Amino acid sequence: MSEFFNLTSPDSASKFMISQLSVISDEIVDTEKSHGRIISRDYESSDNLPPYARSSMDGYSVRASDTYGASDSLPAYLEVIGEIPMGTLATIAIKSGESAVSHTGGMIAKNADAVVMLEQTEITENGLLEVYKPVSIGENIVPIGDDFLKGSDVVSKGQMVDAGIIGSLLTNGITNCNVYRKPVVGICSAGDELVDPSVNPQLGQVRDINLYTIAAACETLPVDIKLYPRQKDDFQQQFEVAKNSIDECDVLIFTSGSSVSSRDLTSKVVESLGEPGVLIHGLTVKPGKPTVLGLVSNKPIIGLPGNPVSALTIFDIVAKPIILGLAGLSNPFHRPIVSGNLVENVASLTGRTDYIRVKLVKKIDAVNVQPVLGMSNSISTILKSDGYIEIPPDVSGLYAGADVQVFLD
Amino acid sequence: MSEFFNLTSPDSASKFMISQLSVISDEIVDTEKSHGRIISRDYESSDNLPPYARSSMDGYSVRASDTYGASDSLPAYLEVIGEIPMGTLATIAIKSGESAVSHTGGMIAKNADAVVMLEQTEITENGLLEVYKPVSIGENIVPIGDDFLKGSDVVSKGQMVDAGIIGSLLTNGITNCNVYRKPVVGICSAGDELVDPSVNPQLGQVRDINLYTIAAACETLPVDIKLYPRQKDDFQQQFEVAKNSIDECDVLIFTSGSSVSSRDLTSKVVESLGEPGVLIHGLTVKPGKPTVLGLVSNKPIIGLPGNPVSALTIFDIVAKPIILGLAGLSNPFHRPIVSGNLVENVASLTGRTDYIRVKLVKKIDAVNVQPVLGMSNSISTILKSDGYIEIPPDVSGLYAGADVQVFLD
Repeated sequence: MSEFFNLTSPDSASKFMISQLSVISDEIVDTEKSHGRIISRDYESSDNLPPYARSSMDGYSVRASDTYGASDSLPAYLEVIGEIPMGTLATIAIKSGESAVSHTGGMIAKNADAVVMLEQTEITENGLLEVYKPVSIGENIVPIGDDFLKGSDVVSKGQMVDAGIIGSLLTNGITNCNVYRKPVVGICSAGDELVDPSVNPQLGQVRDINLYTIAAACETLPVDIKLYPRQKDDFQQQFEVAKNSIDECDVLIFTSGSSVSSRDLTSKVVESLGEPGVLIHGLTVKPGKPTVLGLVSNKPIIGLPGNPVSALTIFDIVAKPIILGLAGLSNPFHRPIVSGNLVENVASLTGRTDYIRVKLVKKIDAVNVQPVLGMSNSISTILKSDGYIEIPPDVSGLYAGADVQVFLD
Repeated sequence: MSEFFNLTSPDSASKFMISQLSVISDEIVDTEKSHGRIISRDYESSDNLPPYARSSMDGYSVRASDTYGASDSLPAYLEVIGEIPMGTLATIAIKSGESAVSHTGGMIAKNADAVVMLEQTEITENGLLEVYKPVSIGENIVPIGDDFLKGSDVVSKGQMVDAGIIGSLLTNGITNCNVYRKPVVGICSAGDELVDPSVNPQLGQVRDINLYTIAAACETLPVDIKLYPRQKDDFQQQFEVAKNSIDECDVLIFTSGSSVSSRDLTSKVVESLGEPGVLIHGLTVKPGKPTVLGLVSNKPIIGLPGNPVSALTIFDIVAKPIILGLAGLSNPFHRPIVSGNLVENVASLTGRTDYIRVKLVKKIDAVNVQPVLGMSNSISTILKSDGYIEIPPDVSGLYAGADVQVFLD
């Protein structure tokens, strides 16, 4: 196979890969421990919530008509016939001219149709309730089913669990829930010039950082991560590690050296692991052209480029959607975006997608987008930037002043 | 002490609390395991990186002057005297008229001052290198110190570790780093009407969800979380749990019932735990007025309101900055923001800060910001919204069409 025999755009590459995959299996977990997981079925409310009309204020259950016309100068006077304690069923029923003490979140008295706020009342010397402001029917009452109506949607398949979803499931009594299993992402690193970061590199060697930056990027995803020992550019060594890891993992990522031979080795290893092997070899993108995408035993294999910025960019643009798609997220392509004004001309070649690292500079009236240039795309470029802009293949560059969308790191 | 004796604005409340705290102690962790932690000292580069000039392309080390004037019709011809393999010291020195095979990321030949790309060359039948395009001095070479100059900043105290920081530390050989210890956040829940989410609530009871939504909100922070068993509105019970938890934790959060008596109990417990006790009782904010902030044994104690939306809002606005300040983050008040056009009038009272939950609706030319109204502020309000807008105390409302900033969940 020749290098770059089928250059593909990054978007169509990840979409194609997702189309080849089946979503991972699911499992049941405690809802309270499901934060960050992806829901694998739809849930709906099995009851009206709240199941009873609830007071939204501290005050008094009343019949609204008893308060009509009440004012500071001419209050309404009501008898207080009791209190509905928190956490108990309302046993008190009021009739016209009567009221009962009610607490925020507690039940209202039977026959009551409104609650007057504590602040708009006073108790007279003879124990009567003075009401200074009229309330309308339903005022300060949370009606039955206000939170969830029986049968209404609580959460849908493919959503990522956050605090709001945990609260919504639990308030519906759903104390365990179906979520997709966390895919196990294996990360293999290889390259003759790579040494462990703890080693003082000889001239010509570099510390291997991609293994760890890609692992760190995976930390924000609902996955388990497995790192494999670093290998030399040796087919047999790499093949054995990969063969073993493909059994243990759901996704395999190779971070390799930056030389052609190192990259060729990655695709050779992927080809040897099984069918169908390499599907896409080379992307029409800068940085990140030497990317390899394959599939073995229905598991995606992603060979990232060797340059640190290229590796993180392709991880974000291509690998992350593939992993999130496999993990069951309904919208694996979502990326947080900020728009701003480009402050410099940026050149680009047509026929490929360019990703340019940028820094955001907040101004009073706008956000300025400042390209972080630098031929080498070394890791410090990431430190100096906040994200990147995308220049599509049919555009030959952008002028200063253009309104651009920045994909945030 | 009377309820709301010292109403304070939410911003000044969290700033005041942070001013009363000392940042937590630090510890040393493996850099590769430091994702999401907060760096506790400044780091600078101890060497120039790369320490040698590196090729940024696959191609040939050359002397630039040998290529001047080269074109497709009139190539420059150079002898190839060898190859500099990846991961090895360049031992080959070239002189005028000579070249050496160089790999991306590898060293360049001694005396070389540029690299010609493989794509702009061919090898003739007699083994000579044909160069079709001139290169200038330094072209396709990553100079010494391009990534980090010796003594330059790598990462500063108070930064949260991400993939870029992990890569930058490791490329500098910093394989372990000083980070602040993760504060232990204890969450205590109490309220007569609260039952465990697994229990089918009787009329008048509600499932306790705040304990878990607040724990889920803490999951995104660099903290360890400890949940304490739910208590009734009983001073002695609550006091004993709190006394025990204040020893085990660095921050204590109370989620309590929504009634006045339940809230009063929280502040009584905080007062009894030690000096100085309650510092702020009541915030000039909606939702979230009945918030209690205190300090015992130099540890912050936060009593959240009982309503689910109020509890999550005050957690985000007040508790989160306090926890992140204690945890050592240099900018604990940062919140992700999107701006858009408000599509409805929103009323607000002057003298308090109002937080209105909103939904973002993307239009072709703008982002519309749609208030999610609902008196009850039940948990489904969070499901239906993307974040909230803030209406400051000196503003009595906002008109439809206003440009507003949305704090994202």
